Amino acid sequence: MHEIRLVGFDGDDTLWRSEDYYRTAEKQYEDIVGRYIDLHDAGTLRHLLEVERRNLKVFGYGVKGMTLSMIEAAIELTGGRIGARDLQQVVEIGRATLQHPVELLDGIRDAVADIAAELPVVLITKGDLFHQEAKIARSGLADLFPRIEIVSEKDPQTYARVLGELGIEAAQFVMVGNSLRSDIEPVVRLGGWGVHIPYAITWAHEAEHGLAEAHPRVRSVESPRQLPAAVREIVTGVRNAR
Amino acid sequence: MHEIRLVGFDGDDTLWRSEDYYRTAEKQYEDIVGRYIDLHDAGTLRHLLEVERRNLKVFGYGVKGMTLSMIEAAIELTGGRIGARDLQQVVEIGRATLQHPVELLDGIRDAVADIAAELPVVLITKGDLFHQEAKIARSGLADLFPRIEIVSEKDPQTYARVLGELGIEAAQFVMVGNSLRSDIEPVVRLGGWGVHIPYAITWAHEAEHGLAEAHPRVRSVESPRQLPAAVREIVTGVRNAR
Repeated sequence: MHEIRLVGFDGDDTLWRSEDYYRTAEKQYEDIVGRYIDLHDAGTLRHLLEVERRNLKVFGYGVKGMTLSMIEAAIELTGGRIGARDLQQVVEIGRATLQHPVELLDGIRDAVADIAAELPVVLITKGDLFHQEAKIARSGLADLFPRIEIVSEKDPQTYARVLGELGIEAAQFVMVGNSLRSDIEPVVRLGGWGVHIPYAITWAHEAEHGLAEAHPRVRSVESPRQLPAAVREIVTGVRNAR
Repeated sequence: MHEIRLVGFDGDDTLWRSEDYYRTAEKQYEDIVGRYIDLHDAGTLRHLLEVERRNLKVFGYGVKGMTLSMIEAAIELTGGRIGARDLQQVVEIGRATLQHPVELLDGIRDAVADIAAELPVVLITKGDLFHQEAKIARSGLADLFPRIEIVSEKDPQTYARVLGELGIEAAQFVMVGNSLRSDIEPVVRLGGWGVHIPYAITWAHEAEHGLAEAHPRVRSVESPRQLPAAVREIVTGVRNAR
């Protein structure tokens, strides 16, 4: 028989703004490349996404990989005409993105504290170890999370490993996050629960998922303030089903 | 009273060759920059180390940070004259370094297996999460390590956190590694034990440490074959001191 014993939270775009900074970075990248080519013809950002995707298996996720992909994409798209000073500006885009302030989503601190008062919580975040640690420190939320897991990919295998190390079965676990692909689908596939809290914008790569609408083990909320009730509803449902 | 309950192993240059690939990368970087400047006058690699060090707090350790630093250093050193195609070659240095084969040090598999037959072991490795995971997978050693910790910095605080999560006191822990700065000194500062196994070459940044010669809780060995005896000597010494 099961009981919910752990609630996981994603970091980027669940606890704090992230995608906005990537979008700003892309805009700045377009401006630099636009000094050499006609942006209307070029499909600049579609090309960048292609370069990022083919590099994912070597660079992994994160800002440094994005920056290296931007440099490569800019050289490709300009036929090698882009100047070194402009490429240095692309490096500066990366540096600025790594150092952006961490802005918590409105109401998220109270929501996490509320849930953490009733159940153990864990932060499970994907991407660059160094950057994620810096963001957690800057977020001021580290005190709420006794345990933090930074992973390179959010697939069922990774969640199974993390839950195994913590001695928790998937059916006892609720994951809260903005990405159906990374936060909800893999946990549901393992037999766990999900609370989906969509963010205003989603990276094209994260928008792809194979989850049916209205899955019985998934709840959706619109704002952090609705999170505690959604988690409580799952906890109660699981308890009553025993 | 204490008993040794866990043995930690570093990855890079302790289990597998790593620094060699960084040195190759630096040599290739010099060749590219040498197309623009007189290498004899330039202190090219000293300049690169300076750029890497000032970037460490933003980029962290690892190949992607090194590659971004190389791009920045090459632009700086050539006064912006370096061409985009040559900068693409710097990106390729990074890509090749991330994909290098993993060559185990001679005898290390048997040494780890020998120690793991008597005591729990953990791999504690520093650097880029994605690259370290790829190397562990390619090393074929994952089966020997039920637990793997990839950390962004190896300081006393990090070791204390990892040991805390594993429920082990520092005095019950032996760390095996090639870097006095990263593997031995911080563990000894916490009250733990170290087995130092120097690698043929050391990155200048890692060569700095504050450990006295012949510390009573540190053993030194010259080859992986001597590791099991060195660990056993510590285990026995601790047991007899009770």
